[in-house]
Amino acid sequence: MSDATTLNAVLERIDADFDASLDRLFTLLRIKSISADPAFADDCRMAAEHLAADVRSLGFETSVRETGGHPAIVGKSDGAGSKPHVLFYGHYDVQPVDPLELWHSPPFEPVVADHADGRKIIVARGAQDDKGQLMTFVEACRAWKNVTGSLPVGITMLIEGEEEVGSKNFARFLKDNKAELAADFTLVCDTGMWDRDTPAITTALRGLVYEEVRIKAANRDLHSGIYGGGARNPIRVLTNILGALHDDSGRIAIPGFYDGVKDTPKEVLEAWKKLNFSADTFLKPIGLSIPAGETDRLLIEQVTSRPTCDINGIIGGYTGAGAKTVIPAEASAKVSFRLVEGQDPDKIRAAFRAFVKARVPGDCEAVFSDDHSNAPAIALDFNMKPLGAAKQALTDEWGKEALLIACGASIPVVADFKNTLGLDTVMVGFGLEDDNIHSPNEKYDLRSFHKGQRSWARILAAFAAQG
Amino acid sequence: MSDATTLNAVLERIDADFDASLDRLFTLLRIKSISADPAFADDCRMAAEHLAADVRSLGFETSVRETGGHPAIVGKSDGAGSKPHVLFYGHYDVQPVDPLELWHSPPFEPVVADHADGRKIIVARGAQDDKGQLMTFVEACRAWKNVTGSLPVGITMLIEGEEEVGSKNFARFLKDNKAELAADFTLVCDTGMWDRDTPAITTALRGLVYEEVRIKAANRDLHSGIYGGGARNPIRVLTNILGALHDDSGRIAIPGFYDGVKDTPKEVLEAWKKLNFSADTFLKPIGLSIPAGETDRLLIEQVTSRPTCDINGIIGGYTGAGAKTVIPAEASAKVSFRLVEGQDPDKIRAAFRAFVKARVPGDCEAVFSDDHSNAPAIALDFNMKPLGAAKQALTDEWGKEALLIACGASIPVVADFKNTLGLDTVMVGFGLEDDNIHSPNEKYDLRSFHKGQRSWARILAAFAAQG
Repeated sequence: MSDATTLNAVLERIDADFDASLDRLFTLLRIKSISADPAFADDCRMAAEHLAADVRSLGFETSVRETGGHPAIVGKSDGAGSKPHVLFYGHYDVQPVDPLELWHSPPFEPVVADHADGRKIIVARGAQDDKGQLMTFVEACRAWKNVTGSLPVGITMLIEGEEEVGSKNFARFLKDNKAELAADFTLVCDTGMWDRDTPAITTALRGLVYEEVRIKAANRDLHSGIYGGGARNPIRVLTNILGALHDDSGRIAIPGFYDGVKDTPKEVLEAWKKLNFSADTFLKPIGLSIPAGETDRLLIEQVTSRPTCDINGIIGGYTGAGAKTVIPAEASAKVSFRLVEGQDPDKIRAAFRAFVKARVPGDCEAVFSDDHSNAPAIALDFNMKPLGAAKQALTDEWGKEALLIACGASIPVVADFKNTLGLDTVMVGFGLEDDNIHSPNEKYDLRSFHKGQRSWARILAAFAAQG
Repeated sequence: MSDATTLNAVLERIDADFDASLDRLFTLLRIKSISADPAFADDCRMAAEHLAADVRSLGFETSVRETGGHPAIVGKSDGAGSKPHVLFYGHYDVQPVDPLELWHSPPFEPVVADHADGRKIIVARGAQDDKGQLMTFVEACRAWKNVTGSLPVGITMLIEGEEEVGSKNFARFLKDNKAELAADFTLVCDTGMWDRDTPAITTALRGLVYEEVRIKAANRDLHSGIYGGGARNPIRVLTNILGALHDDSGRIAIPGFYDGVKDTPKEVLEAWKKLNFSADTFLKPIGLSIPAGETDRLLIEQVTSRPTCDINGIIGGYTGAGAKTVIPAEASAKVSFRLVEGQDPDKIRAAFRAFVKARVPGDCEAVFSDDHSNAPAIALDFNMKPLGAAKQALTDEWGKEALLIACGASIPVVADFKNTLGLDTVMVGFGLEDDNIHSPNEKYDLRSFHKGQRSWARILAAFAAQG
């Protein structure tokens, strides 16, 4: 068979096998692999064992590996010839599901539903992030294996279970298994398309610093009638600090925060201005209308190339029904920073802590949680060899030229691949902005799941052809 | 018998009956009458019926009365002669008990425990506020009735079940039953002593405005990687607003907030300076050291005669274990203001709402809850007739001169008694600052419960003697 005939047979196999691939995804989605909550540790392990068995069935030499946290799986398969060897990365763990009452169907009972605009969608926690996405790659491998008896390139599968909690044991795992994980480059399927019809390869990612701060005041909860006015209220202290994180122009007020941050190059800005990316296209679908970031920046800069600070959670005092006149003993918040090239995560963390400490009254205490990890921003070399092959394969599948894009999200492992294994990463994914990842009613378009498999089948062929 | 002999017999009866009175209190404390939580509505009714039966057994003509919310009870008994008729007020409802894990014993399983310094204490939700306090009065009536066959003065018992949720149906209930509730003055047992050895009558109370504000931003929770920087974060909006409520000098920054507030008279200030009331005596026991209020005011002013603003609760986003990079759709807070004489609760509420609205971005919304009520501050006439008699009776019982004091807390019903029934109120109570009311491990000193009963027995005798 010619290479083109073989690829066509593989693509036909994907089409013919699609319903079965959906059943296999549903089986994985039913496993409650929430990595943030220790109550689901067994489910995480179950997801790892399930995936290991599946990957093993495709001829990968596969093992479930201890990491100190939730297990990872490593599967290795040599390709058909002296083609590149790629390291594919995905994660089986998912975000917590609260608030549960906002889900229209139970998060771990996947369904195919009709989107308001007629699209067919897969609804479940993890439908996109990252079970749906990683299975597009696994299914592409399955089709290649079933049609040709082997894979077109050598592949090492590396699937972890702690991405949603900062991959805290992952860098060490890479280091400890460096020789075994050797490859020419890495593939990551945890990113999105430019829009519903336009495929994309992500070449830049923001970094992430996640912080948790607890303000401790009195040694017990107090009655505001007796102590109100005289005793320190930790919610007041906390809101006072967090309320000062941004100035009136939307700029982050932490001293040194923008050190090393470069302006977006003029030509990139000009290109971005021509894109159909506006408050109307980006914010209106989520019910908003006014860009919330630095007032002197484009919205696309605010969400991709500028560093940000978001308060992801806050709690203190009485939050039940009705009224309670309490001054609580403590209050806490979770705060995260998206970083861009030039920012050092350690310095940002230290600057935030100094900002908080400078504002804590003498009789209160700020306690920081140390179990959240850092990730620097990533900017990939536009000239790296596999990019062109992947871009052409995506363009062939979707009939629209694939874009190279920057993404506001953070995939810390990409930095680990570079720093620990010395590998560049090609980031391809089929997520859409309305997938509700990390939110109730997470979904993945049925089309993304189907054409995603076909895209990977083509990309693997392109890598093999390139040699 | 002479009046003195009779009183002594009543006091001896209280002493002899003390263990039984404690059993009766425990029975009441076991009823989970949390008024803020609709799940405990039946328990509230049970507490009302239980108290009605007890009061009825003392010869009061008693009924459980519907109010639109939790029921109230009214019990009426004529006195022995043409003596004053008093309206006694108490409440059977209690505050919620969370955080439950901080209680050393279950909140509705009362126990007598040893305080660290050797005092015997009754520990339970409501041990002081207000079940323990109101039972001091009921037990004093029981002793009088048992010894003399009647009460020394005419008494109407009025016990409600919505004090902890702002007594929202109470003013209307007073209005609807004005004739039946006619009396010469009111007694309220919901206040404290000056210190462990010094009894007090409270003649001034701060008012209360309770607010609940919800900031709504996007139409769903968002992933901060995709939307961070560009989409409005309601926690950021909320902390920005709440963080601006106080200026650097501890003054409340809401325009018009201090309108009508008078400075503490010079002679009162001089007297207060001589009191042993300092950060060391007042804040150190709760683990604090720096007065948190207006920096140009005495600590005693901050907690009694100055208006305040406290954030009593805040919640938004992800508050579970671990990290979640969410931008929530909304965030909310409970905020309360303690008011002093000269401030209009309606104006304060409107000023707060205007302050919030002026700071809400155009694509967000501030939603205020309308089910929290207002109470103005109270300042009683120092010359009202029963004050002197009560003061002398308290001085006799405790062996130390009773003080007339201002209290930072709010008892909104006292304004209702004045406005609706035209009655002044004598506020006597036996609470201590370390009673942990509204907090875990609420307690009431066994001594307060015992000498409180004796105090009321003496006060009733003094009222009768005064005629």
